[in-house]
Amino acid sequence: MIDNRPYTFNVALPGGIPNRFELHTRRTLKSMHGQYLDIEAYNDKLSKEDTLLYEVYELSRPEVAGELIHGISIVHPGLVGNEYFMTKGHFHTVLDTAEIYYVLQGNGKMVLETLQGDWAIEELTPGKMLYVPPKWAHRSVNTSLEHDLITLFAYPGNAGHDYGTIETQGFRKLILIENGEPVIVDNPRWQEPAQREVDL
Amino acid sequence: MIDNRPYTFNVALPGGIPNRFELHTRRTLKSMHGQYLDIEAYNDKLSKEDTLLYEVYELSRPEVAGELIHGISIVHPGLVGNEYFMTKGHFHTVLDTAEIYYVLQGNGKMVLETLQGDWAIEELTPGKMLYVPPKWAHRSVNTSLEHDLITLFAYPGNAGHDYGTIETQGFRKLILIENGEPVIVDNPRWQEPAQREVDL
Repeated sequence: MIDNRPYTFNVALPGGIPNRFELHTRRTLKSMHGQYLDIEAYNDKLSKEDTLLYEVYELSRPEVAGELIHGISIVHPGLVGNEYFMTKGHFHTVLDTAEIYYVLQGNGKMVLETLQGDWAIEELTPGKMLYVPPKWAHRSVNTSLEHDLITLFAYPGNAGHDYGTIETQGFRKLILIENGEPVIVDNPRWQEPAQREVDL
Repeated sequence: MIDNRPYTFNVALPGGIPNRFELHTRRTLKSMHGQYLDIEAYNDKLSKEDTLLYEVYELSRPEVAGELIHGISIVHPGLVGNEYFMTKGHFHTVLDTAEIYYVLQGNGKMVLETLQGDWAIEELTPGKMLYVPPKWAHRSVNTSLEHDLITLFAYPGNAGHDYGTIETQGFRKLILIENGEPVIVDNPRWQEPAQREVDL
């Protein structure tokens, strides 16, 4: 049942698990089929263990425009081949909806992209707020090999999640580790807008 | 001009002043006429200095439903008579819009109320998120006499601010200091819904 009274909840650090939530999503390696560049490393890792990559704790609200769905995202540290653990990444189903993040802990990058192929990469460090304007798909990448990347997020209740577009076309840019540092590389499997069987 | 690319900004602590903002609002004592319980203390304090009570740093976005206006609120410490420094408090003009807060620093209370006279008071301590559901007016009160109360906020771009309703009817509950501790008291000047010349 939705609580229509105000409420607070605590986000204890380190850890980042809120003391109130309605939904806990755990994404493991097998949900990222086709997303990592190194398919052999992905299959090899998955054959050993379906590793937990990230978790989302969500405070549910009615899925209407005036509400704000909010919660905590925790991306764990690790690599698949030379590529950091990351979230699936998504557009909002209602494209004209924004999202806001605040970084509580850890270090990473947000990889962003529009349907037209514009891209952006923003640094995530503690104390930073990130604004994802309407129409930008977004994926969090944890560029630490030791610590969780923990962010707060909030987005309009009517936004919805479109994971399918990114699953099909990929992100234009990937974040790999090279000599111990994150580098931005082109995704060779990225589908250019002209190649896609969708209307823009 | 509105930036339709993603962006980050940093909220350095202590201080809480973001390194990017479009709007900086400074509210002083004179903007709070009629809001503090002790009118004599208010007038006496104002005659000496138009003290700065709180500041808001806002990142502007288009005033439409899918956007999220966001920023930092800083309520300074102090008293007017026995009443803590606080914000004006407001309903959203579009009542069916929520707001979310995250406490970065300090200690305080959020005083909340609906047009029907339901009320709530929520604790604000570092690491807490607060959800203000649609239809709830809200006011931040700094219950420290030493430190700023610093919060992040975000609300739908189309929400708007209605300060007038609270200026007229007041909040039902006030937060005063008693023996060095905050206490919740009834506001003797509060107008009950039945007394108001407005349609609910």
